[in-house]
Amino acid sequence: MEEQLRVVPLGGLGEVGKNMMSIEYGDDILVVDVGIMFPQTGMLGIDYILPDWEYLRDKKDRVLAAIITHGHMDHIGALSYFLEEFDVPLYATRLTRGLIEVQLRQRHQLEDATLHTMTPRDEIEIGPFTVEPYHVCHSIPDTVGLGITTPAGLIVHSGDFKFDHTPVDGWPTDYAKLAEFTNREVLLLMSDSTNADTPGRTQSEAVLYDAFHQIMREAPGRLIVATFASLISRIQQVVDVAAEYDRKIAIAGRSMVENTAMARELGYLEIPDEMLVELHEIDRFPPREIVIMATGAQGEPMAVLNRLATGRHHALSIQDEDTVVLSSHTIPGNEEMIHEVINRLFQKGADVYYDPVAGVHVSGHASQEEQKMLINMLHPRYFLPIHGELRHIKHHAKLAEQLGIPKQNIAAVENGYVLEFTDGRMEVGARVPGGYVYVDGTLVGEIGPRLMRQRSELGDAGFVTAVVPFNPRTGRPVGQPRIITRGFVFRPEAEDLLDRAQDVVRSAAVVEPGTKPADVEANIERALSSFLRRETRREPVVTSAVVDIT
Amino acid sequence: MEEQLRVVPLGGLGEVGKNMMSIEYGDDILVVDVGIMFPQTGMLGIDYILPDWEYLRDKKDRVLAAIITHGHMDHIGALSYFLEEFDVPLYATRLTRGLIEVQLRQRHQLEDATLHTMTPRDEIEIGPFTVEPYHVCHSIPDTVGLGITTPAGLIVHSGDFKFDHTPVDGWPTDYAKLAEFTNREVLLLMSDSTNADTPGRTQSEAVLYDAFHQIMREAPGRLIVATFASLISRIQQVVDVAAEYDRKIAIAGRSMVENTAMARELGYLEIPDEMLVELHEIDRFPPREIVIMATGAQGEPMAVLNRLATGRHHALSIQDEDTVVLSSHTIPGNEEMIHEVINRLFQKGADVYYDPVAGVHVSGHASQEEQKMLINMLHPRYFLPIHGELRHIKHHAKLAEQLGIPKQNIAAVENGYVLEFTDGRMEVGARVPGGYVYVDGTLVGEIGPRLMRQRSELGDAGFVTAVVPFNPRTGRPVGQPRIITRGFVFRPEAEDLLDRAQDVVRSAAVVEPGTKPADVEANIERALSSFLRRETRREPVVTSAVVDIT
Repeated sequence: MEEQLRVVPLGGLGEVGKNMMSIEYGDDILVVDVGIMFPQTGMLGIDYILPDWEYLRDKKDRVLAAIITHGHMDHIGALSYFLEEFDVPLYATRLTRGLIEVQLRQRHQLEDATLHTMTPRDEIEIGPFTVEPYHVCHSIPDTVGLGITTPAGLIVHSGDFKFDHTPVDGWPTDYAKLAEFTNREVLLLMSDSTNADTPGRTQSEAVLYDAFHQIMREAPGRLIVATFASLISRIQQVVDVAAEYDRKIAIAGRSMVENTAMARELGYLEIPDEMLVELHEIDRFPPREIVIMATGAQGEPMAVLNRLATGRHHALSIQDEDTVVLSSHTIPGNEEMIHEVINRLFQKGADVYYDPVAGVHVSGHASQEEQKMLINMLHPRYFLPIHGELRHIKHHAKLAEQLGIPKQNIAAVENGYVLEFTDGRMEVGARVPGGYVYVDGTLVGEIGPRLMRQRSELGDAGFVTAVVPFNPRTGRPVGQPRIITRGFVFRPEAEDLLDRAQDVVRSAAVVEPGTKPADVEANIERALSSFLRRETRREPVVTSAVVDIT
Repeated sequence: MEEQLRVVPLGGLGEVGKNMMSIEYGDDILVVDVGIMFPQTGMLGIDYILPDWEYLRDKKDRVLAAIITHGHMDHIGALSYFLEEFDVPLYATRLTRGLIEVQLRQRHQLEDATLHTMTPRDEIEIGPFTVEPYHVCHSIPDTVGLGITTPAGLIVHSGDFKFDHTPVDGWPTDYAKLAEFTNREVLLLMSDSTNADTPGRTQSEAVLYDAFHQIMREAPGRLIVATFASLISRIQQVVDVAAEYDRKIAIAGRSMVENTAMARELGYLEIPDEMLVELHEIDRFPPREIVIMATGAQGEPMAVLNRLATGRHHALSIQDEDTVVLSSHTIPGNEEMIHEVINRLFQKGADVYYDPVAGVHVSGHASQEEQKMLINMLHPRYFLPIHGELRHIKHHAKLAEQLGIPKQNIAAVENGYVLEFTDGRMEVGARVPGGYVYVDGTLVGEIGPRLMRQRSELGDAGFVTAVVPFNPRTGRPVGQPRIITRGFVFRPEAEDLLDRAQDVVRSAAVVEPGTKPADVEANIERALSSFLRRETRREPVVTSAVVDIT
């Protein structure tokens, strides 16, 4: 019997294998991507979420390398945390490596990291694995999919991809390499499910040229284009069209400045020197000759666009005849924040273009017809839909079934399930433990569901704390208890309610002499909670402190 | 000079005139619609929001009536609060009246209310106004738009509308009445902007029949259809198709049960008696013969669908071969909650259909081509886009301009702006004060922005309260201060941090003898906040209580 191949999508309850995959043959492990997840609305106070790599902790010596498919945060954003625990080399294409270096440099980890540049069509031997990156189209240049040859067979990992026949960088997906993989027989395809509930094909980046042409032609004044700082191709498109209308380019927002500088240096972004102007220089040009590339298309409170919408930017403010374009997709959960920004921009007198009212964004991910195309090109024996919530995974699995892959050969699973390949046959094994690893300020992984629930209760109705001077010998409160409250009621208008609450606390603090302070506090909290619930139909967090006055 | 006509969209910062309009001629005022707004994500703990009718408070005697265009909550939901302050008759069509009665009965206000049934094509004289309701298509039957003749001219209020040529109830919009209005010359059109950023036409309700046919044909077991309880037409469609597949109908969810009962009684919903089964009886039938209509298509935590997804329903649970359909649009802000429900339903083994992956919902509102059609049919002298956020209002205004309405005749304004018509000319006057009126438990309007900000801070990082026994004569703490915290750090793992916080508090409580307690507390809070921020990079709400131990 040959040694076992094990494939495990890691992460919390989020998108399957989006942020991290483990591929294990015998004693050796390859990791693909190490990214972060963005918090959902209910995850109060959380900055971002790391994939849960608990599964790998007792196998540290066996991890040979991490291969990174592209430079978006959901694929590279957790690397600095990962490298603190795992001393392994990273493999990435040039631009991706550049973006990783920016991140590691900020955290003073760059000198200790081992980075290798990989190039599409390389064949990289790492232990028992041969990794063959191949070029794919996505919304950032230099993205790759991976062929990974193992002694148990060939695995293809699609990366984030779309089949764009007219990409901005003129470099379509490497179909020849896909054909070659097919000829070598694909044991397992794991493929990007992001748009698995979107019928049809994703539009080419090229369609955006028309939209930008129309907007630049008609915009009577300055044009402000907000997008992700990592959407290098989109920035290139704006620059290309701006050149035709003799508009200069100014860059606003730290990550936008850093990324464009790095991408220009590496040759992934072409902006002629004479076209670039500093933000503080733009008033020297007529408004019609200016384009500002800005961060904040998700409405993020600290990014440029939100500052413009709320009049909080140090150097810029919205003026009449400004035109604003939001050129990016909406991360679910950000809808309201984005709408708020758009409304405020209109209020300040700008004209605003956004998806879907104007065709100013296309997805970087394959839709159903492209997903089917990849499956049919590779006809893998086994299929693992990755990169999506369970609903996308299930839809992608349905598509694969329609194409004739037997249901038992499709693993529509969540993160943490172990796919075991023995003698060329796949079995879905047990689920390894795992959950969200929250990052909140300096705390990593210490924020659990219980704390999250407390935050949610506090956010809903605030807190009320009773501080009660108390004589344990008499079992009676001394003087007036004090009520501290925030986020529950507005004090001046609720004075009467809080006065009565004080009485409730006093009564509840009258107990048998010798009662333990903790029991007195429990008594007070019970009485106070039920009084407040009855009076307001709300449930603030209630705590109390009995202070011994003997 | 004739008396002045004044039109004011009331409400907070939300959708313009969606929930309430005031139309005033001389001393007399008509109100159109009195609905609620649903809270946005950042409005923690808020149940819903009332329109701000402060403008009307000193004009109570002058309000003659409230005219209600249809029975959705955003048009009727605030009536019970309104009637507590304004003793005026309500006018509504039969079904709308039925839905209002359900609401007023629950709050024991029905006997004191004066309700009049109005019928499309009625001419209702109310003071100087003649109100002519006319039938329009929307996602609930018995919706009307309004012609309101005033001495200053004819106003047309579109209501919520779409131009559906094949509506479920077979009753298209009353084009003849619109033509008649045109012949009488329309001074002001106020029209539904909800979909003003959606190009083209809204699809007919009729297209849903195909989707439901396909789903019922293929669903191997029970079919669970979740929608709004007020989407009576949608329920009728499901019933009609279910009949063809010999499926019984069971109703789950209190509001769904109440509304269907009322709509059947009034003849707006036809379900043959023999088709209806009780929820507890469904197991007596083969799964293929069952359709369950359920609440919760927005993912609401307490509604049926969420309970099914999380295994918390008292009578039902998801079983293999169940098919679930979410047939409603997504209220912005609910996306994540809905996705979570869908993912969990998949996890429990159901197949799930939802928009846009399957054509199981169409909007009840006109898109751009229909909006243009209405403007062109009526060619009003003045145009007031209503029912939308500012971005929709601005887009609707752009459409009107394209159709030749002069820019200065279009009022693309926010809630609270007073449109004044004098001698047939419109001017946009000052803005009347107004804001959100939050309803939170029993508190109405007492929750202000400051409390909301406290809730948001508490939700983000919790609170830390220091309770410090203190001797004012020595200016020194007595014994150990106590730290109470919730939602900030997880106690066992943060014991060391909190020990050090205790030391910080002790040091900060060492002051000049005679220092005022409030100043000691300020000192403690300052020191504790900055310690915690430095250590954790987070900012919990910090409070303190100094307790006099003399």
